[in-house]
Amino acid sequence: MTQGSLFRSRLAKEFDNKTARFHTSVNEDLRIFEDDINCTTAHDIMLYEQGIIPLKELKMILAALEEIRRKWRSGEITIGAEYEDVHEYIETMVIKQIGIEAGGMIHTGRSRNDQVVTDIKLRLREDILNISEATLNLVDVLQKRATEHADNIMIVYTHGQHGQIGTLGAYLSAYADILLRDQQRLTELYARVNTNPLGSGPVGGTSININRKRTTELLGFDGIQENSIDATSSRDWAMETAAVCAIIMGDLSRIAADILEWSTVEFGYIELADEYTSSSSIMPQKKNPSTIELLRGKTGESYGALIELLTMEKGVTTGYVQDLQETKLTLWRTIENTQICLEIMTGAIATMKIKPEKLYRQVPGNFAMAVELAETLSNEADLSFRESYKIAADLVNLSISRGTTLDKLKPEDVETSATSLYKKKIKVNQSLIDKATDPKLSLQRRRSLGSPRPEEVKRMLKEHGVTAKKQRASLIKTRNDVESALKTLHETATRLSK
Amino acid sequence: MTQGSLFRSRLAKEFDNKTARFHTSVNEDLRIFEDDINCTTAHDIMLYEQGIIPLKELKMILAALEEIRRKWRSGEITIGAEYEDVHEYIETMVIKQIGIEAGGMIHTGRSRNDQVVTDIKLRLREDILNISEATLNLVDVLQKRATEHADNIMIVYTHGQHGQIGTLGAYLSAYADILLRDQQRLTELYARVNTNPLGSGPVGGTSININRKRTTELLGFDGIQENSIDATSSRDWAMETAAVCAIIMGDLSRIAADILEWSTVEFGYIELADEYTSSSSIMPQKKNPSTIELLRGKTGESYGALIELLTMEKGVTTGYVQDLQETKLTLWRTIENTQICLEIMTGAIATMKIKPEKLYRQVPGNFAMAVELAETLSNEADLSFRESYKIAADLVNLSISRGTTLDKLKPEDVETSATSLYKKKIKVNQSLIDKATDPKLSLQRRRSLGSPRPEEVKRMLKEHGVTAKKQRASLIKTRNDVESALKTLHETATRLSK
Amino acid sequence: MTQGSLFRSRLAKEFDNKTARFHTSVNEDLRIFEDDINCTTAHDIMLYEQGIIPLKELKMILAALEEIRRKWRSGEITIGAEYEDVHEYIETMVIKQIGIEAGGMIHTGRSRNDQVVTDIKLRLREDILNISEATLNLVDVLQKRATEHADNIMIVYTHGQHGQIGTLGAYLSAYADILLRDQQRLTELYARVNTNPLGSGPVGGTSININRKRTTELLGFDGIQENSIDATSSRDWAMETAAVCAIIMGDLSRIAADILEWSTVEFGYIELADEYTSSSSIMPQKKNPSTIELLRGKTGESYGALIELLTMEKGVTTGYVQDLQETKLTLWRTIENTQICLEIMTGAIATMKIKPEKLYRQVPGNFAMAVELAETLSNEADLSFRESYKIAADLVNLSISRGTTLDKLKPEDVETSATSLYKKKIKVNQSLIDKATDPKLSLQRRRSLGSPRPEEVKRMLKEHGVTAKKQRASLIKTRNDVESALKTLHETATRLSK
Amino acid sequence: MTQGSLFRSRLAKEFDNKTARFHTSVNEDLRIFEDDINCTTAHDIMLYEQGIIPLKELKMILAALEEIRRKWRSGEITIGAEYEDVHEYIETMVIKQIGIEAGGMIHTGRSRNDQVVTDIKLRLREDILNISEATLNLVDVLQKRATEHADNIMIVYTHGQHGQIGTLGAYLSAYADILLRDQQRLTELYARVNTNPLGSGPVGGTSININRKRTTELLGFDGIQENSIDATSSRDWAMETAAVCAIIMGDLSRIAADILEWSTVEFGYIELADEYTSSSSIMPQKKNPSTIELLRGKTGESYGALIELLTMEKGVTTGYVQDLQETKLTLWRTIENTQICLEIMTGAIATMKIKPEKLYRQVPGNFAMAVELAETLSNEADLSFRESYKIAADLVNLSISRGTTLDKLKPEDVETSATSLYKKKIKVNQSLIDKATDPKLSLQRRRSLGSPRPEEVKRMLKEHGVTAKKQRASLIKTRNDVESALKTLHETATRLSK
Repeated sequence: MTQGSLFRSRLAKEFDNKTARFHTSVNEDLRIFEDDINCTTAHDIMLYEQGIIPLKELKMILAALEEIRRKWRSGEITIGAEYEDVHEYIETMVIKQIGIEAGGMIHTGRSRNDQVVTDIKLRLREDILNISEATLNLVDVLQKRATEHADNIMIVYTHGQHGQIGTLGAYLSAYADILLRDQQRLTELYARVNTNPLGSGPVGGTSININRKRTTELLGFDGIQENSIDATSSRDWAMETAAVCAIIMGDLSRIAADILEWSTVEFGYIELADEYTSSSSIMPQKKNPSTIELLRGKTGESYGALIELLTMEKGVTTGYVQDLQETKLTLWRTIENTQICLEIMTGAIATMKIKPEKLYRQVPGNFAMAVELAETLSNEADLSFRESYKIAADLVNLSISRGTTLDKLKPEDVETSATSLYKKKIKVNQSLIDKATDPKLSLQRRRSLGSPRPEEVKRMLKEHGVTAKKQRASLIKTRNDVESALKTLHETATRLSK
Repeated sequence: MTQGSLFRSRLAKEFDNKTARFHTSVNEDLRIFEDDINCTTAHDIMLYEQGIIPLKELKMILAALEEIRRKWRSGEITIGAEYEDVHEYIETMVIKQIGIEAGGMIHTGRSRNDQVVTDIKLRLREDILNISEATLNLVDVLQKRATEHADNIMIVYTHGQHGQIGTLGAYLSAYADILLRDQQRLTELYARVNTNPLGSGPVGGTSININRKRTTELLGFDGIQENSIDATSSRDWAMETAAVCAIIMGDLSRIAADILEWSTVEFGYIELADEYTSSSSIMPQKKNPSTIELLRGKTGESYGALIELLTMEKGVTTGYVQDLQETKLTLWRTIENTQICLEIMTGAIATMKIKPEKLYRQVPGNFAMAVELAETLSNEADLSFRESYKIAADLVNLSISRGTTLDKLKPEDVETSATSLYKKKIKVNQSLIDKATDPKLSLQRRRSLGSPRPEEVKRMLKEHGVTAKKQRASLIKTRNDVESALKTLHETATRLSK
Repeated sequence: MTQGSLFRSRLAKEFDNKTARFHTSVNEDLRIFEDDINCTTAHDIMLYEQGIIPLKELKMILAALEEIRRKWRSGEITIGAEYEDVHEYIETMVIKQIGIEAGGMIHTGRSRNDQVVTDIKLRLREDILNISEATLNLVDVLQKRATEHADNIMIVYTHGQHGQIGTLGAYLSAYADILLRDQQRLTELYARVNTNPLGSGPVGGTSININRKRTTELLGFDGIQENSIDATSSRDWAMETAAVCAIIMGDLSRIAADILEWSTVEFGYIELADEYTSSSSIMPQKKNPSTIELLRGKTGESYGALIELLTMEKGVTTGYVQDLQETKLTLWRTIENTQICLEIMTGAIATMKIKPEKLYRQVPGNFAMAVELAETLSNEADLSFRESYKIAADLVNLSISRGTTLDKLKPEDVETSATSLYKKKIKVNQSLIDKATDPKLSLQRRRSLGSPRPEEVKRMLKEHGVTAKKQRASLIKTRNDVESALKTLHETATRLSK
Repeated sequence: MTQGSLFRSRLAKEFDNKTARFHTSVNEDLRIFEDDINCTTAHDIMLYEQGIIPLKELKMILAALEEIRRKWRSGEITIGAEYEDVHEYIETMVIKQIGIEAGGMIHTGRSRNDQVVTDIKLRLREDILNISEATLNLVDVLQKRATEHADNIMIVYTHGQHGQIGTLGAYLSAYADILLRDQQRLTELYARVNTNPLGSGPVGGTSININRKRTTELLGFDGIQENSIDATSSRDWAMETAAVCAIIMGDLSRIAADILEWSTVEFGYIELADEYTSSSSIMPQKKNPSTIELLRGKTGESYGALIELLTMEKGVTTGYVQDLQETKLTLWRTIENTQICLEIMTGAIATMKIKPEKLYRQVPGNFAMAVELAETLSNEADLSFRESYKIAADLVNLSISRGTTLDKLKPEDVETSATSLYKKKIKVNQSLIDKATDPKLSLQRRRSLGSPRPEEVKRMLKEHGVTAKKQRASLIKTRNDVESALKTLHETATRLSK
């Protein structure tokens, strides 16, 4: 057997040290080490079933693979930069153990080009399921805390300014709805990821009599990515993964922004648990919401990873190119980032102290009730909405000039305004003003579907909780399917090894 | 009534000229002009049905809206920067026509915050359907040309180097498969876009007795985006739209890269039709594939637009903020870009001249058949694949040193190599070598599912053509649903106007 | 003469309508219309001086160019998509006016490839000077308002939490320093942009006996971009322009974030002038800081534009490619965006109402003085800083548990803490505590260079104001150089036309 | 002394394990471990000189720091996630060694906020110098190989199509010029990075009597970043670093694109050395230019990193926020990526085999000489350039229809074309055609400044070589200044320790 790297027979010189370090992907490959073993196991069982690998050699191969798996799990394996990738490493180890006559059969009818994309997809589908679960966990916590605070009145904001009277439950419930859409994106992405590229060869298939349906079954794929050029060359599913992660992180960054604003002394609506804050090396009074700031900063990571993958793909010709090797590195990074950020956010929201009295503090007499006043006038005082709006604006200005709030208005203030603005004589009584400017009553009247009215929030929480439960049940089923296929694969291997 | 802008009653000063130009969105709003009229029509019909707008006023409103639509269509309308947006413009025009008593009713129970997102979604769903159709048109052209060239043999590449023998049909068919996945993404995106946010008020709903289910029906939405905070504040569907466009453009950029390489004098595989090329201002011989280069350059536009939207969303607090106004501008730009690029690519591929003789030119004797030789040896000469591979590599080097090609090898060359590398005595005959190095025979033996073997390509084209047809049928149904809802809306409006 | 487009002699078919619209750059070229005329004027004067264009034909050409310029300025010109670009349009118009014998000379020894990059650089250098001026204007306003508020005490924040006692002057002055660095970046960029590519031909120069030094002088370039391949093919200066714009916008986005937070009811530190806010279509009380939100949103535009340009450049081969045509469109957009955002920010800061009493409101007794207490103990009580810090933290907790503030501490509290934490007997007197917890005194003691102490802020403002003045003087000189060169060009053209 | 983390005195609970891992920056801090020791050494020497740390305690501190440095260098140190960062780790170790009375002094008058940015800048300035050197090394190799190939004629391309006749020397020389601009950007960036933020405290300075000028001198900074808010809060220099890296990588990606195209079998202009290529796991004939493909793929990394940093900065309020912690991680990644890519490109170009005969293969009779013909006609045949151009285009079409090349044209062909297109009777002789279509003669006539004519290329290489030498001399001087300052720092520490 020739010395040196397994695949460089055609090339006279080995990589020098620097190029080897530049070129190798062994570090990012560690994440697919066992996936590669599973992939080879399935492939070689299929080759045996097709009559290409004899049983004797198959037994040797399976034993060698399981030995490598054992060493890997026990931490005995480190892979140097002299290996281009994990695929070369594992094949080399097998050949070292059982010789080239048997070991040289493991790669029959396969190329690294279809092998690597199979490995990545095997890993990625697990990652997507994990992120899905983390997303549903965050949904659960949001719905739980929304339920606890369905009745807690607060200002809801637009443009960072006081908008209307609302409830904290409605706020938290909105977040849950957004994340349910993210989870839906993950589910649809999963379906595009979990298709089998194995058997596509380097780019144009193989003349070995393989059976792609069988490896599809053994590896728990839901279908086959048929066209061999497409299967080895495309990375649209990787870009989509990064895009979904970026959308999730964009959503989390807005939750983070709210939490950070609410944590300021000036707002004071919430207090993060100690384990999600840090102090200062010099300012002893500090309790900094630094974990959530860090999470907000990590939004950049996901946007960057997306651009990395899109740039990598841009304008490269069809067929596997080495540019795509970087896909792994970037995917793993953004996936881990998204996963941990979801978990951190779940923990922070589950444990944060909410201060209902602070939330309510600014509610009484708040000018946010001007819209209630306008709508009430439009409902009850024979004015069009735009007239009512103009009158309410006039009354806000009047109250500000008086240094009072809207609940101090008198019927004659309203009537005067109507006359002066529209030459209209209208009649309002004090109870209209009182009703329109009472926060609780006004919130009660907010009957539109989806409003922050406590009853409506509770209805939504109940119904959307059912949606969340369904999405979780479906996730569990998918996970079971995968685990069951892999279990069968290992049982088959064990049976054949005997 | 105070002069000046409709909504600035509370503010003493108007925008100065520069700020008005900075702030206004009227230019990007032109694209939603009619959507805004439809949205208001549906909302006001619902308000009438709920007993909030009397029939008489409704008639005046509907007439005014239709008059504005008529003027718009006939090009009579230009909107200056003194209007913040199209919503303010249209309400102002209605009030100007029919007075504030009737006209002032059109905005009852609604805010610009839910209105604008409704308008955008009404427009965006059409855009998505158009891009879907353009994608399916490109799929059709690819499948058509792939069918024409299913038998045309060419080199297929990896790393830009000769990889295996394949067919042009397989290449073109791979592109079609990729784009079918893109079309699937568009379909799933559509479902998330086509939900109704109208009735969410500024952020916290309304106390006007509206009926959100009715506007959902009137506007042809498939469901309701319930939570009022979510509905007015979220733009995840916009980010997803830009992400799908970026993925499509990334895919097109690779097709473009192939076309551009194939158009070089050195490759010479294809020639773009004159209408997709340009010449030089100074080099009279030039026929530049500039349209496809331009398309490749426009990939940048879609990546940029995605980053624009993601950045916009990053770290802004919940509730409508003006940052989000920019969503429109960016969305329209990337949608138009994607649409035209799909159409240009469709035209270029439909009309490009393919040169089978050039494609075949390098095939005979090509070293790309080394993999065939290795697989044949592994199949027939009692060698493991890795041994065969090493021998084939040895024979490639031998042929290069002799200045010949693989089809010139003799049985003894193979036997000598096996002995020298592995001390093995094997027996091969000339027919094995001939078979392994004949391009057509070798392609015939490539029996793996999804390979570029002509019969396999034809099978895939047939089956994936059925998929394409199904996706188109579903697209047509969706489009009909939307059109039918809007038709009913207009008929209802016409009936009520009488 | 053949009909149809000027440069398509080699091609049988014209663009169809859709491709023409896709391909044309006439819209983005409008911005370089006069630059193109200047470029041609300089080029043709040089050709005359080199004996290539006879005087008679030069006079005809110059007259035709000035006639086109006149029509352009009076708004008589619209360019249809049948022209690929403004260069083809102008040459066609000249030939139409004076015939191909004279008019056909204007493009001698030149290609669109060097021409377009010359035009863009002529325009871009003006744009950079304009953005520089806008940046310096913002610096001036910041320094002016910082000077007004050098003594106004406020909390300065880290992690959005109360950090130390500072001054508003220090805050505003920090912004000015950042923008001075941005202006420096613009100056260095300018030097790389203002070099002459004209005379590089399509990619490999020309055999016409041109004089590149002369056009460099006539057009006011500072030097020559020599290598013809580099000059026609590189766009690094465009990417750098977008990068500097993105950095500026990133900086502005942080100023915007401060302004928006300070504008909340909860902070209430400032109030934007009415002309930089807007109201609501439904909530009559609203005064939204929407102009600054919009500016923050437009940060996305600049990040997106940068990615657009970087993507465009990625992996395209050397030599002009049509991909680069998009450079213009993106550059103009990001330049205009940056320019207007700088101007809007300047106006908003110049006119915003600052409320010193609100800024001071939280200062007395603020725990932000804990660091002062720690430093004072470390200075005066024979404790290491870390010991003092731990004691100060202990005293903060003590005060919180008592519901009091730090200025209410007694000497024995400090002494007890030292004993309990470090078994140390220390002696402090009340005046130490009083001194450490008096905001004004404590700020006075903050003597480190660059601190927010009013005297230090004033020193910095004075010195950095000198820097700003120098940068402006240099900007004015650069602008004068350019204007003077162009003036000479036009005078030369006028003289020769007679 | 309380147990647990150094800075969490105010907080009751420690991080849980997951949050600790999320929050810690110890991994990315390893790169600034020694910079942190240097920073503390300089700071504490200054505190001693200012009378704040007594000599005895200073000796203990310096000894402890050097002991930690020694352990670090010998690989004895690993830092767990229980430390937030390296700063906490080192202070904790010092206190563990020498007690809190002495050890507790090391952080006097300093905060992590100014400390970390000082450390990063100390490291970053070295990184920038290294990248500068790598850039100049690549320039040298390009100029060397350009000199070797100054006379080698090849086609130069536009739009990927044959443009003009040129030389390989001109191509390689163009790359060198581009990289010299990149090196200039690095130099200007360095000046903005090498300013001292130390002494700015957490955000508002300190009341300890520090001397910022002295630490500036001791650490070899060129100046002070004065304003304490700016110094602790700004990261514009980090964004600029990433931007310059992205521009460099964009430039390298185009060189890569050329190399990859030239490495195809179809072009065959060059062959990468074995150590920059790899083979296939299945196709034994393959010699893939995978190292350069990988480099092109890594362009994505730099674009992504830039977006990461820009996103991180977007819209966060002023004053240190934890978001900015991520700056380090991203900076280190993009710096290492850029550095190694420059080195790989240098090695690949230095060792690649250039094949002059392949470069020349397509030159004789190439239609790229049409522009020469047009220019010659315009020079010598009394035709305007546009007329000559149209005639040359006509002759190209004529030659194609005849299946011949331009050098086969006869005088009457030219004359007939002039008559048929312009009804002009012109007279040309064979020598005009021969001259215009002889590649070498035609290249000789390309006399414009910056053209690929061999003599002109040699002139440029000589002059730009001088520029490169000057830039290298300046780089060496800067590096010496830094090293000399650090040497003095260590000598001062050693002297004081005795």
